[in-house]
Amino acid sequence: MDEVMADPIDKFIELYNRDCALNLTLDQLHGKEIYECVPEEHKDKVWEYINAEGFFRDLKVIPDSQEVIKALTEKYEVFIVSAGMEFRNSLIDKFDWLQDHFPFIGWRNYVLCGDKSIIGADIMIDDRPKNLITFSGERKLLFTSPHNVNILEFERVSTWKEVAEKLL
Amino acid sequence: MDEVMADPIDKFIELYNRDCALNLTLDQLHGKEIYECVPEEHKDKVWEYINAEGFFRDLKVIPDSQEVIKALTEKYEVFIVSAGMEFRNSLIDKFDWLQDHFPFIGWRNYVLCGDKSIIGADIMIDDRPKNLITFSGERKLLFTSPHNVNILEFERVSTWKEVAEKLL
Repeated sequence: MDEVMADPIDKFIELYNRDCALNLTLDQLHGKEIYECVPEEHKDKVWEYINAEGFFRDLKVIPDSQEVIKALTEKYEVFIVSAGMEFRNSLIDKFDWLQDHFPFIGWRNYVLCGDKSIIGADIMIDDRPKNLITFSGERKLLFTSPHNVNILEFERVSTWKEVAEKLL
Repeated sequence: MDEVMADPIDKFIELYNRDCALNLTLDQLHGKEIYECVPEEHKDKVWEYINAEGFFRDLKVIPDSQEVIKALTEKYEVFIVSAGMEFRNSLIDKFDWLQDHFPFIGWRNYVLCGDKSIIGADIMIDDRPKNLITFSGERKLLFTSPHNVNILEFERVSTWKEVAEKLL
């Protein structure tokens, strides 16, 4: 979900700049994790935001994800798998967000977990190399996100239009 | 989780008898689902209870599950997989219940899903034949629960002590 279907980075930057009166930009996140881009004294803020109730409830939808995933559901059995278990308060937010923005996928096909190595499927689209490394399926697509731009090991997709070209 | 690690039936019977001044017993559930054991006019109650916030928060722990699962974690990589996605309000209750009663299993090994066919593992212990039927792993153990007593298709375990005998 995050950084593939939903955009937590956009919301983090907005909150962070508001609260810390700074000017963090998306460009500064190139090749880095968020917590690497904030000074030591603000590192707790990252966790505070992400752990807050409601953080994941109103994230922006990644462009074209709705249209392409809808088309994918006509050709594949699509499951939405999110490693949201790290953040207790994200669970219901993620459920509600999916119901709002991806109503064509039912709750039967939602998975909230901590470690995606338990998932048995054929194709995985994910922004985290660690999830693709442990995936046993036949095809692994790395969805571009600021933190993974320097990773070369996987077949990369930078937009949902590219996913459509490859899988539809 | 439910009917294997946690006991929702015990709580359901207690609430139902309290609210409807009836005397539903565990014996009457033999070979049946709960909703088959209540009169037509009470069927909504089943869903009302299960959908309520807090229903899954204080369920009793199934006897010996803590000790045996702790021992299993020393020999196997144990994931707790619950098809709780049907009940939005169960998600955080289930998370908190696991933290309380199974603190030796971390959130990385929790999975809340809707359909367990997405799970890739070697052994599954479950009370629902539908979950074992779609499971691709090598060993399937049907954990006895009132609704499944007449099912003959699977290797059966009736207590966690039996699980220990088979897997430890």
